[in-house]
Amino acid sequence: MVVKVYGPHYASTKRVLVCLVEKGVEFETSPVDLVKGENRNPEYLALQPFGAVPVIQDGDYTLYESRAILRYYAEKYKSQGTDLLGESIEERGLVEQWLEVEAQNYHPHIYNLTLHILFASALGFPPDEKLIKESEEKLAKVLDIYEERLSRSKYLAGDFFSLADLSHLPFTQYLVGPMKKEYMIRSRKHVSAWWDDISNRPSWKKVSLL
Amino acid sequence: MVVKVYGPHYASTKRVLVCLVEKGVEFETSPVDLVKGENRNPEYLALQPFGAVPVIQDGDYTLYESRAILRYYAEKYKSQGTDLLGESIEERGLVEQWLEVEAQNYHPHIYNLTLHILFASALGFPPDEKLIKESEEKLAKVLDIYEERLSRSKYLAGDFFSLADLSHLPFTQYLVGPMKKEYMIRSRKHVSAWWDDISNRPSWKKVSLL
Repeated sequence: MVVKVYGPHYASTKRVLVCLVEKGVEFETSPVDLVKGENRNPEYLALQPFGAVPVIQDGDYTLYESRAILRYYAEKYKSQGTDLLGESIEERGLVEQWLEVEAQNYHPHIYNLTLHILFASALGFPPDEKLIKESEEKLAKVLDIYEERLSRSKYLAGDFFSLADLSHLPFTQYLVGPMKKEYMIRSRKHVSAWWDDISNRPSWKKVSLL
Repeated sequence: MVVKVYGPHYASTKRVLVCLVEKGVEFETSPVDLVKGENRNPEYLALQPFGAVPVIQDGDYTLYESRAILRYYAEKYKSQGTDLLGESIEERGLVEQWLEVEAQNYHPHIYNLTLHILFASALGFPPDEKLIKESEEKLAKVLDIYEERLSRSKYLAGDFFSLADLSHLPFTQYLVGPMKKEYMIRSRKHVSAWWDDISNRPSWKKVSLL
């Protein structure tokens, strides 16, 4: 069964794609053009009532919210491909903790930067310079905490690569690439080494070319 | 081993407490006064570097982020107390989906309402009336989607009570109680029946009195 992934070939959809590559799960993508508003079409809203991306269909099973999809495949194929949940319930607890940190503390700021620096003109609104400045300051504080954490363990949840690290890939790639804010990563020694490690994984090299 | 829960006796801390009651896990609480800024004390930041609540200590295991703590105890005590994760991997996927919806779609709006209607004066800033109005409008749209969903299943993830429902309890209680916005729940037939069901669970009745 080939998993069908609905979403644009960027942003949170790539969070799901890199997970599927790590787990060795075959997929096909069905593009959804957010700029054209295809995520507000009735057919799409029948799949995802909030109009967000991505959504997967796996046989007759439909699931949305990227981090829920990550957890589903990491658990469904626990012993296939890279184990992304840790070996014990305690390790999984820490994976969940750092996945929540990504969602609640890291993502809101990097999302604001991405939206206002990279997508504002395509979406037809002026970038909010005050929000950009505040978001960079808040993200810097979060990265200071990451720096301390990553001085004590190779990855966020411990000495194993997990969903918590993987979930950072798509938007951090925007930060170091098109947003030209690589200095935020490179000015922090342990964050920098972590980024080199996770962004050089073959799975991400494959997905970042899509 | 008694679980130690750090946090104030309200808001997201109650999300963890009601889960521990459902699972039959003994706990003691260690209050953290947010108004006095006790969450920014060095001792607290050593437990939770972002200064957020709650945190648990279970022997020598420390975990933060309320929804990560929910998942940890729901899995650690899978066969004790109420099963909160569903029976199959597919059911758990839907629990994760709706737990993410709560975190990403429901919580930001109800949090803004709670902060600006109930806590602004205690925290020393003026309530933002424009944000209150916008947050109520956005929450209403989310509740419309819940209404449709709950017309097809008794609970959010299916016909079983789960972490996805439980996670809504503390802030929805603020909405129907001190915020005096019970009409947002009562004007939607299936949301109203769902709220009656989940808020009348003995676990919540116990925790809401703490």
